[in-house]
Amino acid sequence: MSPAAPLLQTPPAPIQLPLSRRMSRMTSSAVREILKVADRPDILSFAGGLPAPELFPVEAIARAHAEVLATEGASAMQYSITEGYPLLREWISQLMAQRGIAAGPERILVTNGSQQGIDLVGKVLLNAGDRVAVENPSYLAALQSLGGYEVTFDAVGSDAEGMRVDELEALLQGPTPPRLIYVVADFHNPTGRQLSLARRQQLLALAQRYGVPILEDDPYGELRFGGKDLPKLAALDDQGVVIYISTFSKTLAPGLRVGWLVAPPSLVKSLTIAKQASDLHTGTLSQRAIAKLLGSFDYAGHIGMLRNVYGERCRTMLGALEQNLPAGSKWTVPAGGMFVWVELPEGMSADALFHEALEQKVAFVPGSPFFVGASSGRFMRLNYSNRTPELIAEGMQRLGRVAKG
Amino acid sequence: MSPAAPLLQTPPAPIQLPLSRRMSRMTSSAVREILKVADRPDILSFAGGLPAPELFPVEAIARAHAEVLATEGASAMQYSITEGYPLLREWISQLMAQRGIAAGPERILVTNGSQQGIDLVGKVLLNAGDRVAVENPSYLAALQSLGGYEVTFDAVGSDAEGMRVDELEALLQGPTPPRLIYVVADFHNPTGRQLSLARRQQLLALAQRYGVPILEDDPYGELRFGGKDLPKLAALDDQGVVIYISTFSKTLAPGLRVGWLVAPPSLVKSLTIAKQASDLHTGTLSQRAIAKLLGSFDYAGHIGMLRNVYGERCRTMLGALEQNLPAGSKWTVPAGGMFVWVELPEGMSADALFHEALEQKVAFVPGSPFFVGASSGRFMRLNYSNRTPELIAEGMQRLGRVAKG
Repeated sequence: MSPAAPLLQTPPAPIQLPLSRRMSRMTSSAVREILKVADRPDILSFAGGLPAPELFPVEAIARAHAEVLATEGASAMQYSITEGYPLLREWISQLMAQRGIAAGPERILVTNGSQQGIDLVGKVLLNAGDRVAVENPSYLAALQSLGGYEVTFDAVGSDAEGMRVDELEALLQGPTPPRLIYVVADFHNPTGRQLSLARRQQLLALAQRYGVPILEDDPYGELRFGGKDLPKLAALDDQGVVIYISTFSKTLAPGLRVGWLVAPPSLVKSLTIAKQASDLHTGTLSQRAIAKLLGSFDYAGHIGMLRNVYGERCRTMLGALEQNLPAGSKWTVPAGGMFVWVELPEGMSADALFHEALEQKVAFVPGSPFFVGASSGRFMRLNYSNRTPELIAEGMQRLGRVAKG
Repeated sequence: MSPAAPLLQTPPAPIQLPLSRRMSRMTSSAVREILKVADRPDILSFAGGLPAPELFPVEAIARAHAEVLATEGASAMQYSITEGYPLLREWISQLMAQRGIAAGPERILVTNGSQQGIDLVGKVLLNAGDRVAVENPSYLAALQSLGGYEVTFDAVGSDAEGMRVDELEALLQGPTPPRLIYVVADFHNPTGRQLSLARRQQLLALAQRYGVPILEDDPYGELRFGGKDLPKLAALDDQGVVIYISTFSKTLAPGLRVGWLVAPPSLVKSLTIAKQASDLHTGTLSQRAIAKLLGSFDYAGHIGMLRNVYGERCRTMLGALEQNLPAGSKWTVPAGGMFVWVELPEGMSADALFHEALEQKVAFVPGSPFFVGASSGRFMRLNYSNRTPELIAEGMQRLGRVAKG
């Protein structure tokens, strides 16, 4: 190097910006990493929670978009009101009536999928330090979202009838009662269970007696292929303690990002203000396209088809588990939804099995991340909605070979 | 009434659910109510902040949706990754390069419009009790969104060169320095001003020296019709203290709800986790349609057209203000964006004028809500992007008649 060479200019070190406290509650989930691995094209994965894309009503959705763009043009692309497209709110009001929930459009807020509904409820109802009662195990992304409001979770046990309402009652009577109860009553993620009618009535009575709101998260309720409908908590509620959220993600297509929540009118007003601050409003075109589609499409027939297909896939999986899993394994028998929850025999570890299974090109999600606190480490979640019966049979054979060592 | 008539059953009183503390910081804005009134079909309104819908590239957007739906089908409707559609992130990376910002796709997070970018930055960086420095007046929805994180705003004065960076420096040296600096450097809302080059350099130097992040909100930067480009703060930043957010809302169409943010990779990771908890991801179809459109559409030509039209509308408004407003009125002369900021002569009240103007079927937004703390009450914001020159001339005549009493 000649003496005249200019000094190398090192760029200044980047400044490390300190994060908010709430971010320590929203670390990148273990499942996120698991799903990345499971997503490798050579892996036959039952890890994700995806609906079957081959069942999306692509043509009807395409036609609805084309019609909206041809007839509504620029107004389908302009800013719109935070509450949601009025005609879509009316359609949702009708869907709610079919689910036994009497909710006029003024009680409905359109959201970006039901995940945003969870976030907005946290924003509007929760303070740092509050306690939130959740079934254990619970939907992971709800724990992430509500956890971001710096709350502490009270884990309530779960059995064949769903949330252990007696345990909840003890919490409500305790010195630091929960400020919110989060529940998936129909076809729980990850367990696939539903809350029994008696428990629904008890849960609602408790929430009303103690004045604690219930967040009823119902993305899967329409996907029933066995048993009969039980009343939604929101349908039983006559005192405005239930906030109900649902979505078109499992019945039409998740990529449109259109869901909704139902709450008492004064709370909808607050949730609307929170949504306005969060992202102004949900996509105008998506909302109008769904409203257009609901006006002509055989939505009930489409859901009937989904129920048949998912029911067949579920039965295939249950049969294949019976044939392939080692003796002593147990699993739930869902009447709807997208997941089977498996408990491996004593002495086995789902985490260890996960890594062995990857080598055999099959994947699932180990159950531990769904628990608040420790778990036995013997649970795994299997998704059946996203694979054909043939692939389910093949996948469960591989899994059985690995599990039987 | 016969004695045998059954007792009327009064339904139980609804339970009033207590709201979180943050909601007291996100009350329904005065502007929201003003916009509702101004939206009456008989009112010639300059109150909103809407782009011109007759300039939306409706056909190109419709074609892009049709192509995506025809060729990508179900995958355009499935769940997708939180970071955003990879091809769109690449396009945005190229747009960023055109704005002088070197940002690979890994530094880009796709959001639901830039409003969500503001919210996510608050979520990831701010704790309750933190102070946030904002230009005074400031974009109202940013105050709403960041205010929801229970922060206190430090109002920094504004003059013809934009934010008074000397006032900011005093705050940074003070006992409770801000944890975030929020700035709209190009064509500010509501003032229409831009931050001078010298101030940009000073502002960035301060942020780097004190290690305080800048949130550079740039929805309007592409809409320049006068003067020449000044470097973005993000383009000047070599230490990762600037988070830049922008959107397709003003250049394509807001109803698609697609914006983005640019930040250092580690911060993008945290922002991605926060977005995942907020709403999983931005609409798959909208993202793919925009990526498709950018591959064939003359985006630069379209923006050139927008600049011409908005420039003409702005000049029309400035000329009409000159002709119609009472002596002693002052206003900004924007080189881009969508707003003129008017100061009425001493003794006049913009609030009083607003109500008188409504009677003459013309509307604007009084300036007071844009201020942190008190204001003179003599400011008003006028939007010119959403009205033709003819209607602008007519509207300013009406406004002048009212103002001159």
